[in-house]
Parts: sequence; structure tokens; C-alpha cells
Amino acid sequence: MTQKKATVLGAGSWGTVLATVLADNGLDVTIWARRGAVVQEINEKRINSQYLQGIQLPETLKATSSIRDAVSGADFLLFVVPSHSMREVAKQAAPYLKHKCVVVHATKGFELNSLKRMSEVLKEEFPSFASDRIAVLSGPSHAEEVIEKSPTTVVVASDHSSVAQKAQSYLINSYFRVYTHPDVTGVEVGGSLKNIIALGAGLSDGLGFGDNAKAALITRGLAEMARLGMAMGAKPITFAGLSGVGDLVVTCTSRHSRNWRAGNLLSQGMGLDEVLNQMGMVVEGIKTTQAAQELSARYLVEMPITQELYAVLFEQKDPRQAVEDLMTRGKTDEMEQMIEGSLD
Amino acid sequence: MTQKKATVLGAGSWGTVLATVLADNGLDVTIWARRGAVVQEINEKRINSQYLQGIQLPETLKATSSIRDAVSGADFLLFVVPSHSMREVAKQAAPYLKHKCVVVHATKGFELNSLKRMSEVLKEEFPSFASDRIAVLSGPSHAEEVIEKSPTTVVVASDHSSVAQKAQSYLINSYFRVYTHPDVTGVEVGGSLKNIIALGAGLSDGLGFGDNAKAALITRGLAEMARLGMAMGAKPITFAGLSGVGDLVVTCTSRHSRNWRAGNLLSQGMGLDEVLNQMGMVVEGIKTTQAAQELSARYLVEMPITQELYAVLFEQKDPRQAVEDLMTRGKTDEMEQMIEGSLD
Repeated sequence: MTQKKATVLGAGSWGTVLATVLADNGLDVTIWARRGAVVQEINEKRINSQYLQGIQLPETLKATSSIRDAVSGADFLLFVVPSHSMREVAKQAAPYLKHKCVVVHATKGFELNSLKRMSEVLKEEFPSFASDRIAVLSGPSHAEEVIEKSPTTVVVASDHSSVAQKAQSYLINSYFRVYTHPDVTGVEVGGSLKNIIALGAGLSDGLGFGDNAKAALITRGLAEMARLGMAMGAKPITFAGLSGVGDLVVTCTSRHSRNWRAGNLLSQGMGLDEVLNQMGMVVEGIKTTQAAQELSARYLVEMPITQELYAVLFEQKDPRQAVEDLMTRGKTDEMEQMIEGSLD
Repeated sequence: MTQKKATVLGAGSWGTVLATVLADNGLDVTIWARRGAVVQEINEKRINSQYLQGIQLPETLKATSSIRDAVSGADFLLFVVPSHSMREVAKQAAPYLKHKCVVVHATKGFELNSLKRMSEVLKEEFPSFASDRIAVLSGPSHAEEVIEKSPTTVVVASDHSSVAQKAQSYLINSYFRVYTHPDVTGVEVGGSLKNIIALGAGLSDGLGFGDNAKAALITRGLAEMARLGMAMGAKPITFAGLSGVGDLVVTCTSRHSRNWRAGNLLSQGMGLDEVLNQMGMVVEGIKTTQAAQELSARYLVEMPITQELYAVLFEQKDPRQAVEDLMTRGKTDEMEQMIEGSLD
């Protein structure tokens, strides 16, 4: 079998780790980074010091800042760019897409203003031959653990099972278990919205609320995610799976989660700009809160956690008041609460 | 309004804390303990040194070892005894039950051999006037946090909404939020089975697997709980609520969980007897693993996590092998995996 060519677009921590998984699997892997310094560091020193401190990358991994070189001839293309860059990078990549290339994205979040999901953005920017060959990768997968080959499970969802299976065949190995999934909308919505709940969990923990309170937040968060997802056409059972509750739990309870950390910093009274400065990384949950607030209005779905987070992030609401409001208001019957989500 | 009389049967950590919640709410509270030393300590020193170190109990709390004194005249009776004592304590309490007394239990687990749920055991032992007045309390609620008045949410489920509402009215306050729920079976099954998954989570953490692996275990555990629950007549949505995913998450991720701790000790190569000696407390998950193994056969439901835990606990299977078997086998499509749970 000739060696397949795989390209990862985006050299953040997750993109770099996925590139090493593909290299471990024997593919010919190129990673594209916008910044020349990152490319040089990967090619010359086999490190990515900003995102993966102390990790030695595989010898076979190549980096480039030319999107033409990166995309041309690739059998497998993996987008791992921030949500706000997705459309621009897709536009640049589109002319070089090879026929039969399988395209997967692992980006959380919605496009601001259009409120489109990432696979919708890709479809719009791609030539017609490629628009049926798109999938999304998601699940409970902190990059810091995958690079150590700690056992991890994820899903790859596509409208076409043959596309999901192809992507699975490139990514799966003994420590990275990849399951196919039919519900693209559910996987994208779950993966995106869980970052909002993780911000809330970081706030709650930072304010000294306990594990009981955080479990309540996670439970209601899951119901809120599923309510919006179903309104957008997702299947409810998807939210009970790896890309739903699995990713939600790991993001809300693990010290590796950057959204949790951002929420934690907010609880200390830092303003939004200050938090973002201190993090030095994209915190998708912040933009996702904006997008979800608009989606909640568009689809007429009650999203109390999103609403409180929005007020904390953009309207200077006191974080303690927000968490207390979430804990103490609501229906007195759990089923009504889960289905309607209403606060009254 | 005359002061209502509430009695808690069982002076472990959860029973004692629930008694303090009821005392905080202005009820006239008696706690029943089998051992005279515990009764004396509560009455004379206002402490329960074995289960709640360093906690001062309310002055108004009374303790007794006479079940007749405890149950007679009670408007509200709360069973918080280990599952293996439920039938015997219910039998002793039954002759003294007041008409219109509301009975709630907060016990996790099934009766061994009969495999009955705790509310079924209560119904069988109670006079007919009381069998319609039974509810179950469950949810993410570590006793150590409730005693500190950290915000906590739970559900009270009954076949009769008026009974659940009555129990809610006694228990609810600003830090202890109680939601009514219609699905007794779902709440009892979820609360019981999550202890098995917590044992597995303790094993996984103890063996050095990461948060990604634990999230996978929690996700599959939830599916496994829901599969058995549905076969037993529960509603699937119950497992997405506080008594399902909420309690599961807190038990698998909190340092307060005794089932997690038991799993953690098992991972260090300790035998079952040694673990139980070291814990010095009832670890419901162990008996529940036995019961669930039998329920899985009776209802023809695949329960791979239960099966692996059973092999570790009772057949000397190597814990690392068990966790690896759970991680690496299974269907390659997530929906098939969740619905069938089969390993092949």
C-alpha cells in the first residue's frame, strides 16, 4: 500500500497532537502553521514550545506555512483552526483539494454572525466534489493526555458513513479509539456548547461552590445543550454519548481544560480582556456564549446557563450572583425543568 | 402551625446530615441509631465522631436506639440504612407507623437474592395504608458538602406527586434544593448503579489512566445504567437528570466518594476484604455489582462495565486488564455501542 498523505491545518496543541497520532499510524504527515517561527521550530527542533512544552515530536513530521504545499495531494485533511479562522482557511485550501480527499474538522464553536456550524462553513467554501466528504471529530480528549498515549475515545461523525469510516481508518490506533457517528449536527453542537458549561464550572469552583453544585450545573448544562441541539435537528441520544456528556464531563472536571481555567480566572474578579491576556490561547467558550445566546433566541429555546454566562462576560454581572441565580431558581419538578429549562 | 415530627432511621454520615437539614428547617427531629454509643454521643456531645469528624450537630437533635420511640408519632420518616438492613429495619418500624406519615428512603442498592429495589422492600413490609406514601431521595449530594451548606440539588421521586411534594416541603431550603420526580424506578436504579461505575473510575484513576479514559467510562456507564433501567421500566430521560448523570459525575470525580476510594484501593492490589477493612464503612457499590450482574442476566441486558468489575471483585481478574478490556473492545459505531453495549 502506498503511504497516504495527511495534512493538519493548525499547529495549536490539539492540531499538533493529532498530527503525531497520524504520524504514529504511519501516514506521511504535514502540519500547516501560519507563523514561520512555529514551522521552523517543528522542522528544525521537533518541538512546539508554545503549545506542548517538553514534548518531542516525531522525526517524520513536516511543517510548512504554505497552504498550497500543505493541501496539494493530501488524502486526508484535518482542520484544527480556531472557529473564527475556519472560513478564511477553508477558502485558501479549497483550490488545492484533491479529488477523494477526506476532510475532517476538530474545531469547537459556531461562526459569529452567521451562527453556522463549522461543517456548514466548510461545505460553503468547498468545490462540490468535496462537500460530501466532510466529517467532524469530537469527544473527551485532552491533548496533554493523548500525547502521552493515555487511552482516549472520540467520535467521527459524517452524513455519509463511508466518509466517517475512512477518517476512522486513518486516526484509530491502540490508544486513540475512534467511533463512527451519524449525527453531525449533534456532535458539533455538543462539542461547542460544552465550553459554555465549562466556563460556568470554572466560575463555580473558583467561587468555592462544591462538587454537588458543579454536578447540578453539569446536569442542567447537558439538558440545555440537548434542548438547543434538538431544535437545530440533532438527535437527543447524541448528547448522552462521548461528544456530549463525555466531553462535557472532562471539560468541566479536568485541570487541563482551558475554558474551565478561564472561568476560574473570571471568578477572581478579572475582566474579560485580562483573562484572555493571561490565557494567551483561544478560549472558544467565550465566543460560543455569544453565538449560543443568539441561537437561543433564533430557535426559541430557553438556555439559563448561557444567559447567566453572557451576563457575566458581557454585561458585568457579578459571578457569584449568577451562580446563585442558577442554583436557586427554577421549576420544582425536575422533568419540567429539563424539558422547558425555564426560570420562574 | 404545630411543629412536625421527623425521624431519620440510620446515623451514618448521610442520615446524620439529612437530620441536620430537617432540624435547620424547624422540624422536631429524632435520629435512630442501632448502637448506644452513637446515641449517647449525639445526645450528650452533639457530635457523631465516626462519620462526621469535627462537626457540631444542632442542639435540638435528639437520638434514640428505640425504634418504637423513633417511629411513633412521626409525620415524616426517612430511611438512611444500608441496603442489606432495609427489610429488617422496615419490619421493626412498621407496627409504629402513623397514618399519613410520609416515608422517604435515601438508600442506594438492591436487596441481594430478591434483587428488589428499596421502595419495593418497604412496600412489602408496610401496612397497606402506608404503601402509597413512599418516595426515594437521590441526587449529587456529598454529605460533607451539605453539612457546610454548600448549594446542593436532589430529587424526591414517588408514584404519587402529592407524596413527593409533601416530602419536598419538609426537606427544601435555600442550600438544599429538592425537585419532585415521577420515576421511582429510574431514580432508584440510577442511584444504585452509579456506584459500580464509581468503583471503576477509582480503579482507572488508581492505575494512572487519565481524564479522557475516565470520561469514556462515565459515558458508557451512563448508557449501561439506562439500558438496565429501561428494561426494568424506568424512563430513559431520568438518567439524564440529577439522579442519573448528576449523581454519576459527582461520585466518579469527587474525592468525597467512598465507592471511588474503594476502587482506588483495589487498584493498588488490595484484596476485597482488605479494602473493606480499611474503609470501615459500607461500600454499596460492591453488593450492587453482584446484584447488577444478576439483573443483567435476568433482563438480558449487556452490562460490560458491571461484568468487568464483577470479575475484578469476585474472580481475581487483574484490574489493569479489566480497564484495558473496557477501553479497547467494542463496536466501532458509537450508536450501536450505546444501544447494544455489546463487546465483540
